[in-house]
Amino acid sequence: MDKVKVGILGGSGYTAVELIKLLLRHPGAEIAAITSRQDEHIAELHPSLLGRLDVRCQPFDPDALAAKGIQCAFGCLPHGTSMESIPPLLERGMRVIDLSADYRLRDAKVYEEWYKEKHHDPANLAHAVYGLPEVYGDYINGAKLVANPGCYPQPAILGLAPLVAKKLIELSGIVIDSKSGVSGAGRTPQLPYHFPECNESVSAYSVGTHRHTPEIEQALSDIASAPVSVIFTPHLMPMDRGIFSTIYATPTRVIIEPELMELYRSYFSDKPFVRVRTNLPATKDTAGTNFLDVCVKLVRGKVVVLSAEDNLVRGASGVAVQNFNRMFGFDERTGLM
Amino acid sequence: MDKVKVGILGGSGYTAVELIKLLLRHPGAEIAAITSRQDEHIAELHPSLLGRLDVRCQPFDPDALAAKGIQCAFGCLPHGTSMESIPPLLERGMRVIDLSADYRLRDAKVYEEWYKEKHHDPANLAHAVYGLPEVYGDYINGAKLVANPGCYPQPAILGLAPLVAKKLIELSGIVIDSKSGVSGAGRTPQLPYHFPECNESVSAYSVGTHRHTPEIEQALSDIASAPVSVIFTPHLMPMDRGIFSTIYATPTRVIIEPELMELYRSYFSDKPFVRVRTNLPATKDTAGTNFLDVCVKLVRGKVVVLSAEDNLVRGASGVAVQNFNRMFGFDERTGLM
Amino acid sequence: MDKVKVGILGGSGYTAVELIKLLLRHPGAEIAAITSRQDEHIAELHPSLLGRLDVRCQPFDPDALAAKGIQCAFGCLPHGTSMESIPPLLERGMRVIDLSADYRLRDAKVYEEWYKEKHHDPANLAHAVYGLPEVYGDYINGAKLVANPGCYPQPAILGLAPLVAKKLIELSGIVIDSKSGVSGAGRTPQLPYHFPECNESVSAYSVGTHRHTPEIEQALSDIASAPVSVIFTPHLMPMDRGIFSTIYATPTRVIIEPELMELYRSYFSDKPFVRVRTNLPATKDTAGTNFLDVCVKLVRGKVVVLSAEDNLVRGASGVAVQNFNRMFGFDERTGLM
Amino acid sequence: MDKVKVGILGGSGYTAVELIKLLLRHPGAEIAAITSRQDEHIAELHPSLLGRLDVRCQPFDPDALAAKGIQCAFGCLPHGTSMESIPPLLERGMRVIDLSADYRLRDAKVYEEWYKEKHHDPANLAHAVYGLPEVYGDYINGAKLVANPGCYPQPAILGLAPLVAKKLIELSGIVIDSKSGVSGAGRTPQLPYHFPECNESVSAYSVGTHRHTPEIEQALSDIASAPVSVIFTPHLMPMDRGIFSTIYATPTRVIIEPELMELYRSYFSDKPFVRVRTNLPATKDTAGTNFLDVCVKLVRGKVVVLSAEDNLVRGASGVAVQNFNRMFGFDERTGLM
Repeated sequence: MDKVKVGILGGSGYTAVELIKLLLRHPGAEIAAITSRQDEHIAELHPSLLGRLDVRCQPFDPDALAAKGIQCAFGCLPHGTSMESIPPLLERGMRVIDLSADYRLRDAKVYEEWYKEKHHDPANLAHAVYGLPEVYGDYINGAKLVANPGCYPQPAILGLAPLVAKKLIELSGIVIDSKSGVSGAGRTPQLPYHFPECNESVSAYSVGTHRHTPEIEQALSDIASAPVSVIFTPHLMPMDRGIFSTIYATPTRVIIEPELMELYRSYFSDKPFVRVRTNLPATKDTAGTNFLDVCVKLVRGKVVVLSAEDNLVRGASGVAVQNFNRMFGFDERTGLM
Repeated sequence: MDKVKVGILGGSGYTAVELIKLLLRHPGAEIAAITSRQDEHIAELHPSLLGRLDVRCQPFDPDALAAKGIQCAFGCLPHGTSMESIPPLLERGMRVIDLSADYRLRDAKVYEEWYKEKHHDPANLAHAVYGLPEVYGDYINGAKLVANPGCYPQPAILGLAPLVAKKLIELSGIVIDSKSGVSGAGRTPQLPYHFPECNESVSAYSVGTHRHTPEIEQALSDIASAPVSVIFTPHLMPMDRGIFSTIYATPTRVIIEPELMELYRSYFSDKPFVRVRTNLPATKDTAGTNFLDVCVKLVRGKVVVLSAEDNLVRGASGVAVQNFNRMFGFDERTGLM
Repeated sequence: MDKVKVGILGGSGYTAVELIKLLLRHPGAEIAAITSRQDEHIAELHPSLLGRLDVRCQPFDPDALAAKGIQCAFGCLPHGTSMESIPPLLERGMRVIDLSADYRLRDAKVYEEWYKEKHHDPANLAHAVYGLPEVYGDYINGAKLVANPGCYPQPAILGLAPLVAKKLIELSGIVIDSKSGVSGAGRTPQLPYHFPECNESVSAYSVGTHRHTPEIEQALSDIASAPVSVIFTPHLMPMDRGIFSTIYATPTRVIIEPELMELYRSYFSDKPFVRVRTNLPATKDTAGTNFLDVCVKLVRGKVVVLSAEDNLVRGASGVAVQNFNRMFGFDERTGLM
Repeated sequence: MDKVKVGILGGSGYTAVELIKLLLRHPGAEIAAITSRQDEHIAELHPSLLGRLDVRCQPFDPDALAAKGIQCAFGCLPHGTSMESIPPLLERGMRVIDLSADYRLRDAKVYEEWYKEKHHDPANLAHAVYGLPEVYGDYINGAKLVANPGCYPQPAILGLAPLVAKKLIELSGIVIDSKSGVSGAGRTPQLPYHFPECNESVSAYSVGTHRHTPEIEQALSDIASAPVSVIFTPHLMPMDRGIFSTIYATPTRVIIEPELMELYRSYFSDKPFVRVRTNLPATKDTAGTNFLDVCVKLVRGKVVVLSAEDNLVRGASGVAVQNFNRMFGFDERTGLM
């Protein structure tokens, strides 16, 4: 089979370089173009790619991408910019996996409420599929536009999915306490991410206002077929990568831990990237992989779910490749094990 | 005024070296003896003390300590050992600040349930005072034996004190999600604290079983004059020191954020080491200090409290000096600002 | 082509788990056995392998390994133990890549001088090949026993190879100042590698006595066809992985930087894993890869070479796979890009 | 005795906040003014100062500082800016300790060569004293203007002082390989200091071009009464603070290690902040202190000196307070032990 020609939009950030490394190992993908405002060789932007990929970044130009035969574009652009760049690619017949937030929230009003800007592409928003394969698997296979999920939502949604699917917990007031490495903040230098500021420190941020909140609620409400609301608190950890989420929920009936464990095992039995663990997870066990580890406990009458992932792989570029695999007919695991 | 002669029991660990550094700066304390099974100069055990303190460790011997005129002994021994070593010191008239867990839980049965060993000194347990100055201040002043509080309980108890004192929240089901640096695990090498295991990783441990749980509940129940129960989850962070606690509670009546803030300001107005913050705390802001920072928010109907401290200073040796100040008539802040 | 059946001796450490991850991606290798004194599933020893490899560790037994059809054994055992375990495998016709130090030093007396124990297997030492492919390439292809090089020697040897090959520098008094991440110390917990001891600290160790010194000198003397002696100083860095070596040498004649650069480019032109850089290297650019980055400068009349690698991949398990590729007829890069 | 009124110029950076913390503990200093372009309360710029210092930053105004009775100004401004701000303070009779590089190099031409800008204040440069107390002690006592030394020069100069004073080593070709924590780069966010870039990485920078080179050479040449030249290579380490320097020099005559050790002990016998160690130093042993630790070894005929300090305390603000003590008649150790 011929390799699928892929293009990467916005090559300078962390999700782009992670995606490039994954695609370089993928037997069915060929990186045919990378766009960036920085007109440089990709190894100038990311010295780790020296000797691995010989591509020079080019300005974003839909016709040039089409001329190169790009079949799949991965969007690694900031939100806001994404919804400007993606429509012309879809028009030219490319399929798109967008790693920004622009097509994740089905309701443009919710987008505007949380992102404080108007949605400019409601037409494509209407058919975009939320790219969480364990939940929206079949929809992804045939999608033209996949909205790759955010880093925080995945351990939150998958950690709660078995419980809300069975309505075993109260659907409001769910507490999601998440801890993330600094790469989640992107590659633009800012004081909070300056090494001597965040190293050797733990802090919370965006308490009650983080934009991943509605994304978590949208997917959980889909799974529950009922409105779900959460209290989501993100924290910054002094490490490069990894998200650990500790989730507290109130059961709706008497339940015992073995029943919970069995429920999780069963729910994820055919999901190769979710590892249900009997011992407690650690982000390091998932580092560099597309696995999402989950463990469920009962503590003094509350269900406590602990889930971990690599925010750059599972939380962004790895799940993007998983979506790519589904869209282009590869085994879901290709290039990811 | 003559300096108070102090002795340190168990000089080899992190709380001991932190305590020594604080006492070296204290104008009213003289370190007259340090005990350790390791018969070495203290600067052999802790090279950072080279040129700062010329004391050789000696084996534990109550008569030798009495002969040296020790007036106050700081216990930096493991739990279990503490309750063997402290009674002979009290008998010889010394006052004791015990940094172990042995005298923290008023009820010997609760101690036995959580620490899985029998309490051997119920006589002294009966008069020990829990050394959290912001709550038990006056009792500490006259105490013979102070049970210095654990590292996790302080941000949990003080973070919740204003709320439970006024019964503004439901007293059961309070969620305390805590994140600690690795020094909290002590100085004995073990695989989970081996650098390449815990660096660049976040994990939870002792979920539902951590021994600081009953200590938190005992103090909060005192403050509330009613039983309080909590779900406490500790996490290990890749950093040396610092504890960050994120606390989730359900208000018992409609309340607004400014009212909460005013409540906290008022409650801690005469507590020099609690800093009520309007912006979000970070452990680094408290590093090396005896401050405990706290911020309170209202998120979708839940009260969210965020509190931070240095686990070795405020969480152990600093509050021990604060207790020492109260016991020996110094201003509470002496040597700690 | 059938996959080569490989066995791993000593599965509990960091080089073993790194090797396993590399071999899982290798199209021509099948992990057929792992030995360990710990009779457990490999995912119990290394939770990161959960769901990736279903092998239970077994006690070391040469006959059992032969019965399984193991063609290549990778030794991840401590030095001293290696030379006990490897002879019976060679006798049974297996080829061996030993990651310990036991077969690296050609002269058993030098081994005994630096490792303070007698060499028990001089017979196999006589035909062992030092597994640095860029220097001993063809010898490796046909070897029965390959002594995989140490982590520090590789950036030192390859950083100096072009210079000593041409005798452009004085061959004695070469200064090699190396900085390593903590994983180089292995997985056994010890106080110097306890997180709160080595985090946020830089220190030197084994000054003038490190066992990699004679290994560096042996290879450089081979390349120079003359005795080479070095001053080697290793340092411990607060990070998981990576070695950075800064090398200072005195030129034997007037030379200019462009000439040096050209010399390096030419020397490594057919070496796919050595990246000659015009800008300064950083260990992070090599993390998780088998690349060794090198840059050469002229500073006030001294040649300064800067080289970087990942100590677990290039410095151990990656170069082991590179050697495996040569021994079993694969392209040198297979499974490593 | 009345407290000395001090002012701090440029309150927003790391040396300023470190200096403030040291001065808050100093019994003879009162922080009467802090200048900054950011017109904010000092605890807004540095949340760690909340509840410790109630000073609002003010724009730089020499008359306003004079009106407040400032006797000593500490300059925490960038180089270039310093030499604009300091002359008017000296004119108004204030004594100044400048932490920038502007008055360190005696020869304005050398300044211009390395800093690429003209020196605008040669008049004051002529009487400025280089503030390394162990070398220029008595000159500092009476100085009007002290040029506080750079962070790298101190372990380099003091590590070599005993050797060059006795001309026991060759005075050219001395190799100084230094490793620094990230706080040395200041508080302005830039890509190389963005957490995910420099965390878990070691790199060299400014190879052969670092501006501390002439400063090291000037002081060593003073000590030797002969020209000294060095090869200085700085490296960036993934930690907040600390500098470790490994120095390689060639002895001019046969020498043995005990003689070296005795030389160092004798040279520093009356220097309270230099600790000559028999075991190897580590930056962590000096963290938060004004100590500079040094150890000397003989390795294969080369003298190897290992020295460590805290770059923000000993390397900047601590030695500034040490200079302040000398200038205002305090014991050198006041506020620093």
